[in-house]
Amino acid sequence: MLPESITELTGALGKLPGIGPRSAERIALHLVQTDTALVRHLADTTCGALTEKSPCPICDDPRRDPAILCIVERAVDILSVEKSGGFRGKFHVLGGKISPLDGVDPEDLRINELEDRLGRESIQEIIIALGTDVEGDATSFYLAKRFQRPNLKITRIAHGLPAGSGLEYADELTLSRALTGRREM
Amino acid sequence: MLPESITELTGALGKLPGIGPRSAERIALHLVQTDTALVRHLADTTCGALTEKSPCPICDDPRRDPAILCIVERAVDILSVEKSGGFRGKFHVLGGKISPLDGVDPEDLRINELEDRLGRESIQEIIIALGTDVEGDATSFYLAKRFQRPNLKITRIAHGLPAGSGLEYADELTLSRALTGRREM
Repeated sequence: MLPESITELTGALGKLPGIGPRSAERIALHLVQTDTALVRHLADTTCGALTEKSPCPICDDPRRDPAILCIVERAVDILSVEKSGGFRGKFHVLGGKISPLDGVDPEDLRINELEDRLGRESIQEIIIALGTDVEGDATSFYLAKRFQRPNLKITRIAHGLPAGSGLEYADELTLSRALTGRREM
Repeated sequence: MLPESITELTGALGKLPGIGPRSAERIALHLVQTDTALVRHLADTTCGALTEKSPCPICDDPRRDPAILCIVERAVDILSVEKSGGFRGKFHVLGGKISPLDGVDPEDLRINELEDRLGRESIQEIIIALGTDVEGDATSFYLAKRFQRPNLKITRIAHGLPAGSGLEYADELTLSRALTGRREM
């Protein structure tokens, strides 16, 4: 899944004392995204994934469903979705979330690239898989409004109780969204 | 919402050093549910709520929608749902979850009482608001199967990303359920 250079970096970091495999991966992903010298080695892809060749291995995989596009904030979020095992479509990395307070406007994100892909590829559904904070909500609503068009389904990942949780551990907003989003059994 | 005696107990506990209002409430609710002498003072209600009079204040409130019934595991879960502010129906406390390994069978829970209520009250929807662990899943499926009947909608609260969370904090099962349960925007 990850480019070989990042896997190697993860392996090297994991040999340091006190750093387990999960920490090693987190540090490696942090480094490649902040160290501009390292970033320069990564390819500039349409989807925005962390990869050394373009198209990325997922975009290039004929077994992946080209009709479903999962929108994530950062390249590392692709890993999270892949690990969940529940998705067989392709990805598009936005590179951030709309946040006027931090000076991040829609044109700072890879939204024009998304528009290009929607015009060029035969995409039938976009799944917005952004975080559930205020910026994630704002960005999701912006995308849903901007890309409203016939023959394109726009969905967002469910908000609710995380797996293995009881009601007593859920905060009020989570529980309120879990009730609103209740599903017929 | 809580019976006056429990509110008083919470107030008294909250005056102890190092115990904040949230801890005080948690301790008070623990005490009233484990101390049999205290429990004896609480009324035996149809809904199973912690209350000193029957029917409980929620069942007795004409502004609550009698057509929607929220099924919870324990009486204290009513508090969590009430605090979320998203629910205007009535409640039914099961008193536990089906768990063959712990010797908890359907007849050990307040499921026959639920069946009686469905026959007697004009309930159009039951919302199953149990935890998202294995026992919560098993109990939800049991209830959905047992109460499948015309004119009764059976829903379950949504599973997914909790509020304010990013993809990197979600475990694999949560993210997989968030993807499966995605909703059209």
